[in-house]
Amino acid sequence: MSKPVCLADFEVHFLQSLDRIARDYFTSGANQEQTARDNVEAFKRYRLRPRMLRDVSNVNMKTTIMGNEIDFPIGIAPTAIQKMAHPEGGVATARGNCNHKGLRWFQLYVFRNKQTTMNLIQRVEQAGYKALVVTVDQPVVGKRLADDRNKYSIPSHLKLVNVNTDGLRSVHNPLDTQQSTESVVHQYTHTLMDSKLTWDTITWVKSFTKLPVIAKGILTGEDAKLAVQHGVDGIIVSNHGGRQLDGVLATSDVLGEIVEAVEGRVEVYLDGGVRQGTDVLKALALGAKAVFIGRPVLWGLAYQGQTGVEEVLRMVKEEFKLAMALSGCAKLSDIQPSLLAYDRKYYCKL
Amino acid sequence: MSKPVCLADFEVHFLQSLDRIARDYFTSGANQEQTARDNVEAFKRYRLRPRMLRDVSNVNMKTTIMGNEIDFPIGIAPTAIQKMAHPEGGVATARGNCNHKGLRWFQLYVFRNKQTTMNLIQRVEQAGYKALVVTVDQPVVGKRLADDRNKYSIPSHLKLVNVNTDGLRSVHNPLDTQQSTESVVHQYTHTLMDSKLTWDTITWVKSFTKLPVIAKGILTGEDAKLAVQHGVDGIIVSNHGGRQLDGVLATSDVLGEIVEAVEGRVEVYLDGGVRQGTDVLKALALGAKAVFIGRPVLWGLAYQGQTGVEEVLRMVKEEFKLAMALSGCAKLSDIQPSLLAYDRKYYCKL
Amino acid sequence: MSKPVCLADFEVHFLQSLDRIARDYFTSGANQEQTARDNVEAFKRYRLRPRMLRDVSNVNMKTTIMGNEIDFPIGIAPTAIQKMAHPEGGVATARGNCNHKGLRWFQLYVFRNKQTTMNLIQRVEQAGYKALVVTVDQPVVGKRLADDRNKYSIPSHLKLVNVNTDGLRSVHNPLDTQQSTESVVHQYTHTLMDSKLTWDTITWVKSFTKLPVIAKGILTGEDAKLAVQHGVDGIIVSNHGGRQLDGVLATSDVLGEIVEAVEGRVEVYLDGGVRQGTDVLKALALGAKAVFIGRPVLWGLAYQGQTGVEEVLRMVKEEFKLAMALSGCAKLSDIQPSLLAYDRKYYCKL
Amino acid sequence: MSKPVCLADFEVHFLQSLDRIARDYFTSGANQEQTARDNVEAFKRYRLRPRMLRDVSNVNMKTTIMGNEIDFPIGIAPTAIQKMAHPEGGVATARGNCNHKGLRWFQLYVFRNKQTTMNLIQRVEQAGYKALVVTVDQPVVGKRLADDRNKYSIPSHLKLVNVNTDGLRSVHNPLDTQQSTESVVHQYTHTLMDSKLTWDTITWVKSFTKLPVIAKGILTGEDAKLAVQHGVDGIIVSNHGGRQLDGVLATSDVLGEIVEAVEGRVEVYLDGGVRQGTDVLKALALGAKAVFIGRPVLWGLAYQGQTGVEEVLRMVKEEFKLAMALSGCAKLSDIQPSLLAYDRKYYCKL
Repeated sequence: MSKPVCLADFEVHFLQSLDRIARDYFTSGANQEQTARDNVEAFKRYRLRPRMLRDVSNVNMKTTIMGNEIDFPIGIAPTAIQKMAHPEGGVATARGNCNHKGLRWFQLYVFRNKQTTMNLIQRVEQAGYKALVVTVDQPVVGKRLADDRNKYSIPSHLKLVNVNTDGLRSVHNPLDTQQSTESVVHQYTHTLMDSKLTWDTITWVKSFTKLPVIAKGILTGEDAKLAVQHGVDGIIVSNHGGRQLDGVLATSDVLGEIVEAVEGRVEVYLDGGVRQGTDVLKALALGAKAVFIGRPVLWGLAYQGQTGVEEVLRMVKEEFKLAMALSGCAKLSDIQPSLLAYDRKYYCKL
Repeated sequence: MSKPVCLADFEVHFLQSLDRIARDYFTSGANQEQTARDNVEAFKRYRLRPRMLRDVSNVNMKTTIMGNEIDFPIGIAPTAIQKMAHPEGGVATARGNCNHKGLRWFQLYVFRNKQTTMNLIQRVEQAGYKALVVTVDQPVVGKRLADDRNKYSIPSHLKLVNVNTDGLRSVHNPLDTQQSTESVVHQYTHTLMDSKLTWDTITWVKSFTKLPVIAKGILTGEDAKLAVQHGVDGIIVSNHGGRQLDGVLATSDVLGEIVEAVEGRVEVYLDGGVRQGTDVLKALALGAKAVFIGRPVLWGLAYQGQTGVEEVLRMVKEEFKLAMALSGCAKLSDIQPSLLAYDRKYYCKL
Repeated sequence: MSKPVCLADFEVHFLQSLDRIARDYFTSGANQEQTARDNVEAFKRYRLRPRMLRDVSNVNMKTTIMGNEIDFPIGIAPTAIQKMAHPEGGVATARGNCNHKGLRWFQLYVFRNKQTTMNLIQRVEQAGYKALVVTVDQPVVGKRLADDRNKYSIPSHLKLVNVNTDGLRSVHNPLDTQQSTESVVHQYTHTLMDSKLTWDTITWVKSFTKLPVIAKGILTGEDAKLAVQHGVDGIIVSNHGGRQLDGVLATSDVLGEIVEAVEGRVEVYLDGGVRQGTDVLKALALGAKAVFIGRPVLWGLAYQGQTGVEEVLRMVKEEFKLAMALSGCAKLSDIQPSLLAYDRKYYCKL
Repeated sequence: MSKPVCLADFEVHFLQSLDRIARDYFTSGANQEQTARDNVEAFKRYRLRPRMLRDVSNVNMKTTIMGNEIDFPIGIAPTAIQKMAHPEGGVATARGNCNHKGLRWFQLYVFRNKQTTMNLIQRVEQAGYKALVVTVDQPVVGKRLADDRNKYSIPSHLKLVNVNTDGLRSVHNPLDTQQSTESVVHQYTHTLMDSKLTWDTITWVKSFTKLPVIAKGILTGEDAKLAVQHGVDGIIVSNHGGRQLDGVLATSDVLGEIVEAVEGRVEVYLDGGVRQGTDVLKALALGAKAVFIGRPVLWGLAYQGQTGVEEVLRMVKEEFKLAMALSGCAKLSDIQPSLLAYDRKYYCKL
């Protein structure tokens, strides 16, 4: 394979090199995958209105998230079981991120056992993480047909290192015939996770940590307002890569509504469907402070481990810089809503 | 074939296992089948706006229809000549339904011979049925090209058990050459059924039964208002699976108009295009009290008789439950119109 | 080939049985054929809102056009050189029409030579025709790529019987190399026809005939108003089957605008894209008094001559009757605009 | 290959006859090529409302641009390195243009070295050019994946004749591995061109030339107003053939906004996506004074050098003339906005 020139090239390699079960696990969205596809497609419906003859000889992509400076507004979204993509797994990804001076935030699933959750948060604080990201869209696990067909289970040589799974003999085994249409991911989640996740959970988490708490998975203006009321420090607009409830809107299509709802009181980020530099530009024009990329990082990881992750980040960063220059934006605050037109099939009035 | 993980898997089996004539009979819509396809497609245009951090650890799907409690708001739509799908035919379907504690409603075609109709209704009442469903969209039979090509006739070993067909020699035979572009279904309907079906027919039926009368096949707000005025107890929004007049709107696209027109005075149900749990969720968010599924039940019947029917019902029920949980709905009354956005290519304003 | 069950079946036979040059001549639209295709597609964007429980046991399709009664509101559009489709050509078509009690209208191209035109009109009047149809959309001939590629010329054994073509040696021959990208149809038209066609031409025609004059080819409300002002008796909304200016709107998409513009002062008809009974229903719901079908008649002619033409007319008539019954219309005046919804991708508000 | 009958026929020849690297260079748009495709597609969304019965026996296409008369409102857009399409390159194109009595305008890239730019403008003035076209949309070069894959470099036997490239050893060589995802076009532009292009640059250019200055690459009404304020004499609405920032709107979709913004104070032209006579008609109806065609001229050039260029111009001119006649326009001022409808999927209200 020749050297990738765009993120999609990494995907081609990824699809060709992984075994079916791992590929299916990472690739699939819930049910008919309408939302998983639409995350990507939706960005194309936002069209650009670039400005000319501004001095873009120096493009500055610096910004802050939760008060910490970053070099460019693109982070890595959490994805599970990365060792299925590359033997070095999440460690290689983390190292790739560090070389780009990325911050570390911790994605927290809230466990049934409160003490487990509290211990985990303490370790996270001691390890110097800068924020807690609470995933709010997974009270139960979505239905992914490919995993159900594959009777997916976590490969036997892999271990969930942050939780005690001793009581979960079946984590590594397909479910028995009785329940064979549900993958082991469901069972694991059902057994360990707190399906009674409510706004009180957020209040509870905030009560014993000083880290900023970010709600990941908000998809409506109504919930964004509730998040602000419950003291959430930031919102990641996310539909879990289309892996939870199929048919929800693409994240870029709800971002505007959520930015409007929070009225600037908390930072809003986005993940889902970011595949090139102009997608980042569009998300920021819609009001995101930064975006996170998930699957493309896995593609880079599968391609060349840490180096591949770095290359993916470098490429999307360079594309974003080029997109800024060609749209007349020398700094992030130049990226305004007027940069966009929306395809409601189609744009102009006559 | 591996175990089905979604309703579409049953369809694949169905299309592969039935002979062409039976498959065509069940599958085909009228003319170019625009409506038959659009029933399914239309649900995809409704997109979900799920709510987070609500307690969905217990999801309750119970409701009542016509005053009788059911465990979940999904019933079986009437389909004819089910023995072409499985030797046990409608009996297996009925048994599958009973195991899910389904109610029995009787679908009534009004015959030319009034006494025939009256006798039938009496038997229905004595048999403990809970409602009469009067099909209002078939004054004549739609044109289904595949049946016309196949010169479709009811297989000779099958019998219409509820009506006396002694005078109808040709029920089992293709029409003669003279009329060869019309299938025997047309002739049968034309001969037995009352093509002079009017609102007076509804009044007449209501005058000698105490059962609730439900009009199946209403597609406009205007007719929904007339239905209420004529004492109809419920409305099934249906276009006969797209088998009557091709080009009518998808049922989900007229549901909202009809719910609005009846102003809560009668219950409104929907059939047509329901293929997964989120479709049920969307129909209820648009105001349906329950939905009915037709072709997927036939797929289950063809797959494994009564067991297949039960499996189809179980699957769509589980999917619906999951969709409720993932959209933050713990009970049916939590399913509100604000759960939906509509794709008018596309959603948001800019 | 088995017996056709819809008009499209005749088309399949037509495409398979004619030689390429004739097939291309009849089939092609101008340039990229956007309008030719859209005439057909546009009808699908109009969706039906059928009414139930009306007495449709007797469906009456009778109406009048220009004061003369016809059995059903479907006529035959003019098409040229029909002998390329069947040896009996236009005579077979005319006989097929007569068996359906169709009226005869004469399509008039206005010639450079005024006397030629006047003589022709006199013959038409004497032959008992009921109206003159003046084609207004062909000051020059459109560019049809297939004809240009084929260097199309009228086959040498065929003769233009209504005009003296003695001076036109090249009617039967491909153009010489010099002009090889233009077909002989262009040259013929350019030589014989009056390219200086204006509203004065209409006034001139009306000044010496008592026959009603119908303008065929009006596509805007503005021109419809002018037509009324210039004493035109009727309008055929037509884009010449998409054969003149590619990119003009489909006829069904401008019909409403034209019906509104004439405010009932003249009758409005439509041709273009009618392929099934529901298309007729939709055109009438949009305000057309009758529709004309062109290519499908040629398909019938190619299939079985006069018998084929009759069969095409019979089929579309029966489909229209069925569409009326299934939408609750017992007579033509029951066909109202409220029967339609329009797909502006898509229908309902939310 | 048989004689082309439409511009697309030249493209077929072009795609078959050029080597991959040259074909890719000319054909490709930026990134996913959404804009490059949409330039062509967008014209199809504008639909025509032709007027009938106007005297179009003489169609006059004459107009003026920047005060100079031209025979028809279609010019040639600048494209680079034409010798890759035909050995005679841009000279053949220029000669083809002259035979059609085209004017000569000079496309100016502003160089880092001011003196280089000034010398070039002086030569241009002395050579009798009628206008300076300043390209404003290329502060840096867009990312074209095919060129990156091909590691595109200008062929070694070709020379950039208007600039001194002595210091640029690598113009003819692929970049070294270190930078291998960027083509030499980027490097060349980066090295020679002024990436600090601002409105002051326009003021500076205007300060020492009497030629009209035309800004090529304006895509918003906001920038069009700024152009007028900075004394620009004309605007070419262009997105560089979709080769700079992918995702910008099609030029025909922003033309209306720009025409409105300038309020008649400067002439507005368009390039991008013009592929047939009706596209020219539509652009003029939207307010363009003339259009420019780029890739089709290259197709003609590759087909037969100067003769091919002439043939392309002749063909689109003839198609435009036909489109005028068939829409009832005898002169350019007859082409009005009311000639258009816009497909916002779709047109009419109901």
